[in-house]
Amino acid sequence: MLQLYFSPLACSLSSRIALMEAGLQARYRQVNLWTKTRVEDDGDFRAVAPKGAVPVLVLENGEHLTESAAVLQYIADLRPEAGLAPRFGDPDRYRLQEWLSFIGAEIHKAFLFPTFWYKDDGSLAKPRARITQTLSVPSAHLADREFLVGSRFTIADAHLAWALLLLRPAGVDIAQFPPIASYLERMQARPAVKEAIATEMALRKAVAA
Amino acid sequence: MLQLYFSPLACSLSSRIALMEAGLQARYRQVNLWTKTRVEDDGDFRAVAPKGAVPVLVLENGEHLTESAAVLQYIADLRPEAGLAPRFGDPDRYRLQEWLSFIGAEIHKAFLFPTFWYKDDGSLAKPRARITQTLSVPSAHLADREFLVGSRFTIADAHLAWALLLLRPAGVDIAQFPPIASYLERMQARPAVKEAIATEMALRKAVAA
Repeated sequence: MLQLYFSPLACSLSSRIALMEAGLQARYRQVNLWTKTRVEDDGDFRAVAPKGAVPVLVLENGEHLTESAAVLQYIADLRPEAGLAPRFGDPDRYRLQEWLSFIGAEIHKAFLFPTFWYKDDGSLAKPRARITQTLSVPSAHLADREFLVGSRFTIADAHLAWALLLLRPAGVDIAQFPPIASYLERMQARPAVKEAIATEMALRKAVAA
Repeated sequence: MLQLYFSPLACSLSSRIALMEAGLQARYRQVNLWTKTRVEDDGDFRAVAPKGAVPVLVLENGEHLTESAAVLQYIADLRPEAGLAPRFGDPDRYRLQEWLSFIGAEIHKAFLFPTFWYKDDGSLAKPRARITQTLSVPSAHLADREFLVGSRFTIADAHLAWALLLLRPAGVDIAQFPPIASYLERMQARPAVKEAIATEMALRKAVAA
């Protein structure tokens, strides 16, 4: 069985959403990212994943795959009939990769990461000044589209839904972008997305308590 | 003919390397990223690319593709016989995507971007404290490997070679990581890589002069 190392509401949530949308079973193994330990046995997470980051997908052959862009595409390709990624050879596959990169680099790494990890004002001033322009890109794209790529839900939506969800605790009011605010509502209404978020919200509250 | 919007020594250099390694002709159109103008006619670059970032690859059908991870895979797949990416269906394709994401998010967006764009000490302290750990990942991987993925040069190498090249002007001495220092030397010895870098170095000097 696949295993997913995750931390509640970290970017590994997109991989959980993808697994659930694909109807794939997995063992979910929680990590404390601050102490770099595995929650179930206090084991050293860096022994599992030298980068110390989630997601880590343990494949059926025991290999470990990291980085959301790769993990999400791997999951989508395991169950092509779920349509979570355009098939290879379809030009939209590159549009999918374009969005995965944009979300991972511009929203996650350039903004959410310094917000939640660096925290000090010096680290945050420049990313904060930039996030409105960053968000204008998906907002313009989604003004007349239901999904990021093509006409159905893909792993790019799983990733963007996660990123948008984190913007509120990061201090960004997405109501200033009506297309992405209503997009997030639509995504959150999907049963698999709703369940994935609820599961991690509950685990997150347990950690914070 | 393909067109590549680039700025000398910006991350679009990896796409130039990929095009040259693939033996693909392209028209290279220089952008001033600070003024967001096209060098050839002072035209508004944001009219071409709302993100205001390079690379932008103009495809044969006129569509614009952005984000290095997507542009590089598109270029590699145009000329599969060049072996610049494992073919779809090969498990190494996900390893390629894993490296593209790591380089794009952890080296480029988390370190090089704040170094060259934000510049102030407040923005740089945390990324600078983190870069050694970031670089330990490719360093460990390359200790006994010639290339990042499989046994030949891929677009992941094009992207990492670019990122490593920028570390010196960013104030990081990569000699502290012998595996990546010797890897960069090997990559720079490749004729296409050498020519791509020399071309952009000359253009960069012209801009700075």
